[in-house]
Amino acid sequence: MAHITLPDESLPGIVGLFNFRPETTGALQLIAETLLRGESSLTSGERELIAAHVSYLNNCHFCHTSHASAAMAHLECDLSLIDDIKQGFNQIEISPKLRALLNIAGKVQKSGKEVKESDIEAAREQGATDREIHDAVLIAATFCMFNRYVDGLGTWAPQENEAYREMGQRMAFTGYVRYAEADL
Amino acid sequence: MAHITLPDESLPGIVGLFNFRPETTGALQLIAETLLRGESSLTSGERELIAAHVSYLNNCHFCHTSHASAAMAHLECDLSLIDDIKQGFNQIEISPKLRALLNIAGKVQKSGKEVKESDIEAAREQGATDREIHDAVLIAATFCMFNRYVDGLGTWAPQENEAYREMGQRMAFTGYVRYAEADL
Repeated sequence: MAHITLPDESLPGIVGLFNFRPETTGALQLIAETLLRGESSLTSGERELIAAHVSYLNNCHFCHTSHASAAMAHLECDLSLIDDIKQGFNQIEISPKLRALLNIAGKVQKSGKEVKESDIEAAREQGATDREIHDAVLIAATFCMFNRYVDGLGTWAPQENEAYREMGQRMAFTGYVRYAEADL
Repeated sequence: MAHITLPDESLPGIVGLFNFRPETTGALQLIAETLLRGESSLTSGERELIAAHVSYLNNCHFCHTSHASAAMAHLECDLSLIDDIKQGFNQIEISPKLRALLNIAGKVQKSGKEVKESDIEAAREQGATDREIHDAVLIAATFCMFNRYVDGLGTWAPQENEAYREMGQRMAFTGYVRYAEADL
């Protein structure tokens, strides 16, 4: 049970919260949609991996597993991706550029001040543009928000990876705007 | 100098970032406007104190000082408020309800999972509603995002408290939407 009384207690994670306060929901959905599915030179799969990585570092099971499942849908890989994120991306093949951006995202998860010029240089050496660096930082920062929102209000989340498969496909291909109205 | 090349390097903190990526700016401004100036049973002054408190805990000088200055404008107190936040609100008189919500916000700053049922109970005992608890958690979570965005991209910020006086008044009374176009 969440810390506050939600309109529909059966909805997991952030989805239950979206129904509680419509005034804030629109802006939150818009930022997720823009960062994860909007126009970008990073693929949505890559951006979902950044979101899932930061959520795992924040120990947020709902966001880690659901965004890993969205990445899985984009990248057409299997549920083992969820655990591979915990192991630091040993199984999935990721580009040196994405690895450098994941390093920056991991620093942001601790504190903005942890990001050093050398981290930025390392990403640039792998071909990252200013826009890609900006987006990696903002995706990481945004998930430090979403993770705290979901866990700070004590929402529930399914435990098993399989429970997130369809949710991930919907996040990947239907998107985040008006997500609260989707039939979960 | 920020880690990325901004269109106008003279603009401090998040304001310079707002000009870099207009697609994300709208959603970020909307969330600040809704949470800090939208309809609520918490005053804007109280909500700005939560924002400034979390920003101080995250060691984000720009957000701590600018939102303390916005609170100062709402509450009609002086610049010593900026330092009082560092001391845990010894000088300013705050209600037991706000103190309980600030406690929850401080837990959220560490991790959503730090918020315990006893913290929620304590806020309820001081009269906090579900909506007020929700908003305290989301304001705290949102500033964990803004603080990381501002510092993760290495933006500059004026050091002296006095430099934030006018900015705080503008944040308090003009608001956050289209803030990037304000004449700083």
